[in-house]
Amino acid sequence: MGPELHADLQSLAFLLGTWRGEGKGEYPTIAPFAYGEEVRFWHVGKPFLAYSQRTWALGDERPLHAEMGYWRPQPNGGVEVIMAHPFGIAEIEIGVVTGQRVELMTHVVEGAPTAKEVTRVERSLQVTGDVLANDLRMAAVAQPITHHLHAELLRKTDR
Amino acid sequence: MGPELHADLQSLAFLLGTWRGEGKGEYPTIAPFAYGEEVRFWHVGKPFLAYSQRTWALGDERPLHAEMGYWRPQPNGGVEVIMAHPFGIAEIEIGVVTGQRVELMTHVVEGAPTAKEVTRVERSLQVTGDVLANDLRMAAVAQPITHHLHAELLRKTDR
Repeated sequence: MGPELHADLQSLAFLLGTWRGEGKGEYPTIAPFAYGEEVRFWHVGKPFLAYSQRTWALGDERPLHAEMGYWRPQPNGGVEVIMAHPFGIAEIEIGVVTGQRVELMTHVVEGAPTAKEVTRVERSLQVTGDVLANDLRMAAVAQPITHHLHAELLRKTDR
Repeated sequence: MGPELHADLQSLAFLLGTWRGEGKGEYPTIAPFAYGEEVRFWHVGKPFLAYSQRTWALGDERPLHAEMGYWRPQPNGGVEVIMAHPFGIAEIEIGVVTGQRVELMTHVVEGAPTAKEVTRVERSLQVTGDVLANDLRMAAVAQPITHHLHAELLRKTDR
């Protein structure tokens, strides 16, 4: 059952559920790689989505990246995303929701004293039927904004 | 089973598990309140703890606060915490681990455009036997650093 969806979450409701699939990554400083990814969006009846994501290596399934945070819908199709990364970055992204597509870009990024240097992230999430296409561009370690990740995930549950 | 604990996590291993109990909150701008709290620390074999926390109202159990993030042990008893809050704050705390006690303070806090204003957080977590005492002081909404939360949680599982 669970709580009723908050009215302000209508614009982001298409993201709810657990999504799982595979992706490919590239960046000027590393070798191209393939990965498995799981994304989960859930709600507790309040006007935000909780979010967690993790990726793993295809083959031995060792964990690669992970991130967690909250998605806050705003009036007129806006959205704010508050996110923590285990490599030492806390990040706020802002963006727009258009139909079943979200475009996000870094509003502010801060690093812990020992964090990797990340200066800007741009994301797009597009849902078509039961497929979530998840793309990420990143400026980090002195590289300009560059395509980094593309994954296609299938909706496994809707909550 | 799960993965083997990363050697760097020894200093924080006493936090692992799910903790549940009750607390009391106060702040100059609000009426005192009591709450239920669940804290969960887990690991995936890498040198950080994943962390999630949620609180609820005693009685009707409606959700109150929540937060999620990552705890990164550092050499010589240091720790960095990267945390996201659903009211629009991304926060990095730094601190020290002494035995089964962690003291943290804000390193940097950033807000989304519509976030509540929080300027500084200080936390202490102390484990004694199977009890986690969780204390938080906060400077927010133009108030100086002030005691806000105290909870005592029981260890429900150790993973």
